[in-house]
Amino acid sequence: MIPKNAIGIFDSGVGGLTIMKEVIKYLPNENVIYFGDTARLPYGDKSEEAVIRFTMESASFLIEKRIKLLIVACFTASSHALKILEQKLSIPVIGVIQSGVVELMAATKSKRVAILGTLSTIQSGVLQALIQNKESSFVIFPTACPLFVPLIEEELFDHPATRMIGEHYLKHLPEKNIDSALLACTHYPIIRPLIQEILGPHVALIEPARSCAIKTQTCLEQCDLLNRQKATPLYEFYASDNPEKFCRLAKFFFGSDINLKIEKK
Amino acid sequence: MIPKNAIGIFDSGVGGLTIMKEVIKYLPNENVIYFGDTARLPYGDKSEEAVIRFTMESASFLIEKRIKLLIVACFTASSHALKILEQKLSIPVIGVIQSGVVELMAATKSKRVAILGTLSTIQSGVLQALIQNKESSFVIFPTACPLFVPLIEEELFDHPATRMIGEHYLKHLPEKNIDSALLACTHYPIIRPLIQEILGPHVALIEPARSCAIKTQTCLEQCDLLNRQKATPLYEFYASDNPEKFCRLAKFFFGSDINLKIEKK
Repeated sequence: MIPKNAIGIFDSGVGGLTIMKEVIKYLPNENVIYFGDTARLPYGDKSEEAVIRFTMESASFLIEKRIKLLIVACFTASSHALKILEQKLSIPVIGVIQSGVVELMAATKSKRVAILGTLSTIQSGVLQALIQNKESSFVIFPTACPLFVPLIEEELFDHPATRMIGEHYLKHLPEKNIDSALLACTHYPIIRPLIQEILGPHVALIEPARSCAIKTQTCLEQCDLLNRQKATPLYEFYASDNPEKFCRLAKFFFGSDINLKIEKK
Repeated sequence: MIPKNAIGIFDSGVGGLTIMKEVIKYLPNENVIYFGDTARLPYGDKSEEAVIRFTMESASFLIEKRIKLLIVACFTASSHALKILEQKLSIPVIGVIQSGVVELMAATKSKRVAILGTLSTIQSGVLQALIQNKESSFVIFPTACPLFVPLIEEELFDHPATRMIGEHYLKHLPEKNIDSALLACTHYPIIRPLIQEILGPHVALIEPARSCAIKTQTCLEQCDLLNRQKATPLYEFYASDNPEKFCRLAKFFFGSDINLKIEKK
């Protein structure tokens, strides 16, 4: 593996671009290849077995592109497939769940926290177990919000229906006296203001992006794989389907237009 | 092909059970094998190319089960893949779109009609072209309702948010003076009362199920493939993922509990 090889970032769709955006802030010299498995999204309501199979196939595509490190920028894929990826791949693998948990545990004072995620992420129990293993005194309120992703993909970021669905999922939380909530899905930062309003201003909303970027930087340093060439970095974007929608949504998640190639899965 | 072989019904998920329910009413002697491609749903926001690929793979599974006739009980798959299936398969293929169009054209008097469907079904333009080819004087209002499927799969059939999303999609229709609307997605009959309320009581809501069942019966008769044995028919149900959710939703779409087997895709 050589330093000028790219970092690979994988997500079921466009949401992982929120992670990529932060990674390239911290690692401006690095080449990055992004793959979104849009032909089979959403992963969030699929079974563990299906998520593992899709994730392995997506990782193989990036491995063929000779990436030097893989970021699994999808909570559902991280929850189910991270251990298997770590076992099977010979490059470092970084998942969003560890970064999310580290940030959440650093933020909370009361140790009463919520985790908001897809059904599959919440049902896996992986995030809950990670926290409890580190500190068993945490009181955790895992909350599945399955409609957030389709509502966001419909660009109804601030629509009354999105607010109503938000209240439907989250209305039990304000009385639980939480002080922090992990946004355990890379789509959710897009409706951060709405979630903040429902949970109240005293609840810290935690995202894994910055922590994930710092972890990536540290890992590349330790493996002596930082790209020290000063050339303009190359960013490549692949998706397995629906390029128009991906590019339209990319503006919200990545903040700028992108060139997308299709890789069928 | 022999008469005791089963009818195959394919859908991206559980929605096609509304078609199966009607088919077994009209053809109580027939064995039926149902396949829902739940690992890759929804098809409704995927590209034409992806929908064709997934549909061909799903059809192959049913062909291996030696079905004598294939019903494509998914408007998105019917819109994109029906012609290719007809070319490639040596058995009769029946799609929901033709049945839907026949019913819609029989129902309307004013020839001002709406088509409600997934984004992919609406964007394909297939339903619109089918109608216009038969009678160019029709005024059609094609209306994509992408969030209806996830809302229904969340069982929010009568939730205020579903009503709000319904109004968001359909509020332009009452002033168009339509007298009929095709529910061009097998999920939509589940929220029929809500759609009826928004469009008004004078708008006939058209479903393809009965027409599709009659067409199947006629086709089997013509091919001399009706099963005339009086044994209790066998119903087999397969899905490519997420059996719990499929079985839970099956109650609403099929009206009774089912035994499901998993066939990975």
